[in-house]
Amino acid sequence: MVNIVKYFVTGGAGFIASNLVDALLARGDEVVVYDNLVTGFPEFLEEARGYKPFKFIEGDIGDLEHLANSMAGCDMVFHLAANADVRFGTDHPDKDLKQNTIGTYNVLEAMRGNGIRKIAFSSTSSVYGEAKVIPTPEDAPFPVQTSLYAASKLAGEGLITAYCEGFDFQSWIFRFVSVLGARYTHGHVFDFCQKLRDNPNRLEILGNGLQTKAYMDVSDCISAILAIVEKSNDKVNIFNFGTGEACIVNNSVGWICERLGVTPELSYTGGDRGWIGDNPLIHLDPSRLKALGWAPRYDIQQSVERTVDWLMANSWAMDARK
Amino acid sequence: MVNIVKYFVTGGAGFIASNLVDALLARGDEVVVYDNLVTGFPEFLEEARGYKPFKFIEGDIGDLEHLANSMAGCDMVFHLAANADVRFGTDHPDKDLKQNTIGTYNVLEAMRGNGIRKIAFSSTSSVYGEAKVIPTPEDAPFPVQTSLYAASKLAGEGLITAYCEGFDFQSWIFRFVSVLGARYTHGHVFDFCQKLRDNPNRLEILGNGLQTKAYMDVSDCISAILAIVEKSNDKVNIFNFGTGEACIVNNSVGWICERLGVTPELSYTGGDRGWIGDNPLIHLDPSRLKALGWAPRYDIQQSVERTVDWLMANSWAMDARK
Repeated sequence: MVNIVKYFVTGGAGFIASNLVDALLARGDEVVVYDNLVTGFPEFLEEARGYKPFKFIEGDIGDLEHLANSMAGCDMVFHLAANADVRFGTDHPDKDLKQNTIGTYNVLEAMRGNGIRKIAFSSTSSVYGEAKVIPTPEDAPFPVQTSLYAASKLAGEGLITAYCEGFDFQSWIFRFVSVLGARYTHGHVFDFCQKLRDNPNRLEILGNGLQTKAYMDVSDCISAILAIVEKSNDKVNIFNFGTGEACIVNNSVGWICERLGVTPELSYTGGDRGWIGDNPLIHLDPSRLKALGWAPRYDIQQSVERTVDWLMANSWAMDARK
Repeated sequence: MVNIVKYFVTGGAGFIASNLVDALLARGDEVVVYDNLVTGFPEFLEEARGYKPFKFIEGDIGDLEHLANSMAGCDMVFHLAANADVRFGTDHPDKDLKQNTIGTYNVLEAMRGNGIRKIAFSSTSSVYGEAKVIPTPEDAPFPVQTSLYAASKLAGEGLITAYCEGFDFQSWIFRFVSVLGARYTHGHVFDFCQKLRDNPNRLEILGNGLQTKAYMDVSDCISAILAIVEKSNDKVNIFNFGTGEACIVNNSVGWICERLGVTPELSYTGGDRGWIGDNPLIHLDPSRLKALGWAPRYDIQQSVERTVDWLMANSWAMDARK
């Protein structure tokens, strides 16, 4: 007999989480999505609504009582709700604190109140700050935080692992590189496609175009999440994500333009960082993940191209984020 | 002409901070102490009150408006206010979040509002979790948090360093080992002295007595703080504290009993940890600090003995914490 698990997915109407929801439902599990629909899209749950063991609850993780009530009866939490914007953190310093740090605390307390002790969490490659070891392994030298976003994700990791020690929780922590693909609605590929749709003759690039970044396709991200939760069974399970490659922003610009069939005049704002707190070199070592037998289907170039294709076929998403 | 600096010290009526206040005043600087007097003692500011450029403001760092108003006109903040209790974190999981993480955020926002951009911060050896490298250097492998207290201090470090990057702040972060000496009012030496005063014939020890810990005298801690702020001038300055030695709990028990002239029957609760989240092995490498020319005056045994002497001469402090 198959053991059906009931998952609670925070931020389930968001980019990565909605893809995860579809995968969990497709394999026969039950899913409760909890999302405030501030950055998530109801459209991303269209496929999920076709499954009977799917439930959507509109709610904010800032509302602990509603969150705890909504979570009742679930077996495990995928906590993917977050302010995912790194770049504009300094415009509103309370946002990462409230939505990410305190939000994660609320999720943990709601779990504790319901006797749920398994949590998977979306962390970020940004927690490595300006890493001294490249490609960066999970046990890289103790980093210094350079953005409010990363600081809030590290605070979330710290809370979660302290709950593992103090309240006998079990956790799976994913240090994502930038994820691309279907339902991708923020980040540089999005911005570039949006700009080029408006004006295919000109493109402004933040920084000097030489920042090194790592990307992966969301379908590979989801297969990695499922592999980690299934196969890694320590008290605390921390994994780097990524294909193992990295590219520079100019590579990505070239792939996007070619896919779109445009040849814009490029201009650069200059400097080795796109914005304050931008990390000019992100390249994670995903050896721990690959040791589980996981392998990506798409390389970085393919991930970028698939993203361009999805955005062109779903231009409503670009309109919605104007 | 000497440049007089006006310091704002949060938690200035507490153990370490009040010793710092005295040292700053003694060298001729101005000091504003901001303390809610919940765990601090007015008695610890008796010496400070003898100095003209000293001001005390009763207030909680949870009150951002009062905090920001109080900070006006200061040049630099020593943020030492905190819930400093590691052991009972799981009894009230919101305490470390509110008093330490959110408290530090409030201090940073109050500074930003006042145009103050220099902050010194009391972090902890606990942020290394169960360190894989002993003695542990500042760039030890990326640790996993094991207590809510340490998680909140790491969250504070992350916020502070993100403000350095995002808002051009400068920070000095002190990863303290356990500090002992005059005005010490919580921790195992305090608990043992209190218990032995009540009953010199019996002493219960949490754990098996073999946990390895590092201590330093508060006078050495203050000289280290002043040396670091004076001599280290990077954007982010992170320093381990400690004498370089470590001892086991049984060593400390022996020194305390000898100093008190008692020979209690010892009993052990057993296990390699004193409580959930207790770190059985803390031994920091203070090479970075010593490279500044700083050296401790007291070794661990002397620090323990000086603490016993202070507690016996100030038994009101033990009465106040019953």
